[in-house]
Amino acid sequence: MSLPRRVTLVEVGPREGFQFEGIGQPDRIATADKIRLIDMLAETGLPALQIVSFVSPKQVPQMADAEAICAGLNRRPEVAYNGIYLNDAGLKRAIAAGVLDIRGKVTLAMSETFALRNQKRTLAEDYEMQRRIAALYKAHGIAVDYGATMAAFGCNFEGPVAVERVVGFVQKLHDIAAEAGDRLATVNLADTMGWADPELVRRVVGAVRHRWPELRIALHLHDTRGLAIANVYAALLEGVDLFDTAVGGLGGCPFAGHKGAAGNVCTEEVVFLCRQLGIETGVDLERLVEAARFAERIVGHPLPSKLLAASLHPQPAVASAA
Amino acid sequence: MSLPRRVTLVEVGPREGFQFEGIGQPDRIATADKIRLIDMLAETGLPALQIVSFVSPKQVPQMADAEAICAGLNRRPEVAYNGIYLNDAGLKRAIAAGVLDIRGKVTLAMSETFALRNQKRTLAEDYEMQRRIAALYKAHGIAVDYGATMAAFGCNFEGPVAVERVVGFVQKLHDIAAEAGDRLATVNLADTMGWADPELVRRVVGAVRHRWPELRIALHLHDTRGLAIANVYAALLEGVDLFDTAVGGLGGCPFAGHKGAAGNVCTEEVVFLCRQLGIETGVDLERLVEAARFAERIVGHPLPSKLLAASLHPQPAVASAA
Repeated sequence: MSLPRRVTLVEVGPREGFQFEGIGQPDRIATADKIRLIDMLAETGLPALQIVSFVSPKQVPQMADAEAICAGLNRRPEVAYNGIYLNDAGLKRAIAAGVLDIRGKVTLAMSETFALRNQKRTLAEDYEMQRRIAALYKAHGIAVDYGATMAAFGCNFEGPVAVERVVGFVQKLHDIAAEAGDRLATVNLADTMGWADPELVRRVVGAVRHRWPELRIALHLHDTRGLAIANVYAALLEGVDLFDTAVGGLGGCPFAGHKGAAGNVCTEEVVFLCRQLGIETGVDLERLVEAARFAERIVGHPLPSKLLAASLHPQPAVASAA
Repeated sequence: MSLPRRVTLVEVGPREGFQFEGIGQPDRIATADKIRLIDMLAETGLPALQIVSFVSPKQVPQMADAEAICAGLNRRPEVAYNGIYLNDAGLKRAIAAGVLDIRGKVTLAMSETFALRNQKRTLAEDYEMQRRIAALYKAHGIAVDYGATMAAFGCNFEGPVAVERVVGFVQKLHDIAAEAGDRLATVNLADTMGWADPELVRRVVGAVRHRWPELRIALHLHDTRGLAIANVYAALLEGVDLFDTAVGGLGGCPFAGHKGAAGNVCTEEVVFLCRQLGIETGVDLERLVEAARFAERIVGHPLPSKLLAASLHPQPAVASAA
């Protein structure tokens, strides 16, 4: 396997970040600032943005402005905007928002404890919910072609995940698509709680690809324990060319059980890595860094991005002697 | 090449950290706290600690307590303690300190601009200084067997570095050792300003190994642009088994020209990576995390380590619902 020539990045920083940063402080980031950040990201060359979650405003009040954000976007036609939802009610809201590029995405959590915390249902109930969501897509003429797993590399509550279990869940996602008369084109493997390591990424990607050689693999990697960029490199070595990333390293899962942890793998660091490796992303790194600086300003604290702290174009130091 | 079975880590956090954190505030970390951190690190299973610099107290006042630190150590016989020095006067102080395990190490900067800032001399003068240092080792019965380069992967002032130039500087280091009647066993390639990427690491390591197959390669990687852990993984894939790392991700070069940037690759994240990959380090990760927490306390701000923020053993969240 050689490195891909081109990689597609899906920016999830707004959705992940607004959700995580607003815990206990739902009004901390003004809706107008959220929109401004999304608009800035849309001008970087990023092809797709995950901007909001359609979840219960009672449970996640910091996402109560999801519709207001959608309504306020300065929408660019070349960018795909999307949101997430955990049930059919959420999907209905996403469709009703009217401006999103809804994909036929079904998602299965792989840990029961995590599913009970995050989705508020058992794995069996989660499977049934995804069937309902698939039926709802079909009713709206949307093909069910994108499968996703959560906690595919390990779980803070249930520990490591066997590679065979991942393959089993990807099969379940295939089954849901097949029942809807469709076929998965892409499967997203999410390291929701930061359990992946580079060799595990290669084993899991290898096993899924071995079974379904035509399936495009996407990775959603959290940087909880500092290995995310190494995991990206490992995935690139396996030819993976689709990643979820978050500007500034925003994000973190509110139900993963570790407060204060780092968020998703940082978009600008992945873009920088790709640039150094000669892999195209189509992203303007300078504009992206500007967006990251704005993100840092509106969340009100330093983000995990190291590239951001270093500055892109180093200036000779004013520093004294040694 | 397969992953090494065992990796040796040299902890450079005290030297890098005390130097960097003390810029403009030389008394910020009490000498007793510095000693306590070193003692904690010595109890983790780390085989070697770089604890101080013997540099001008006028230029680097935060290192003025180098001798006091050496005198106050609770020295453990199984740990190698060392310091750095940029000239023969510094080496004399290191030897006079009496407790260090002095190695016959010669170091060449690879960028003239950086050398003028950091060592206060041209590359030609730097070469002569290393010959003097080599002669001083010999006068003390120390074999000149360890070569090091600075700015081997790129320079904030002079840009990228060609692989052939690295090979050329390793040859110069060999020449200095040969002139002293010795032979290099190890060469340390330092990414002083965070210019390395995983493929560059593999190319440089490959070129040096191709020319000198018996030479052990060590890497000193800064995390300035967020790629250090990916660079470590790339090096492991090439069989590199010797790394300088810094607890908590302490460090940064005061003369590299980027204030506020991340420091060295983080020891606990490298230990964690190795553990996940089944590579032995001999380091007790729990004790190391305790030392990192103490380091964070004495520097008075969060350190870049993500593992530290996540906590090692995740606890079920107290968190509410979504």
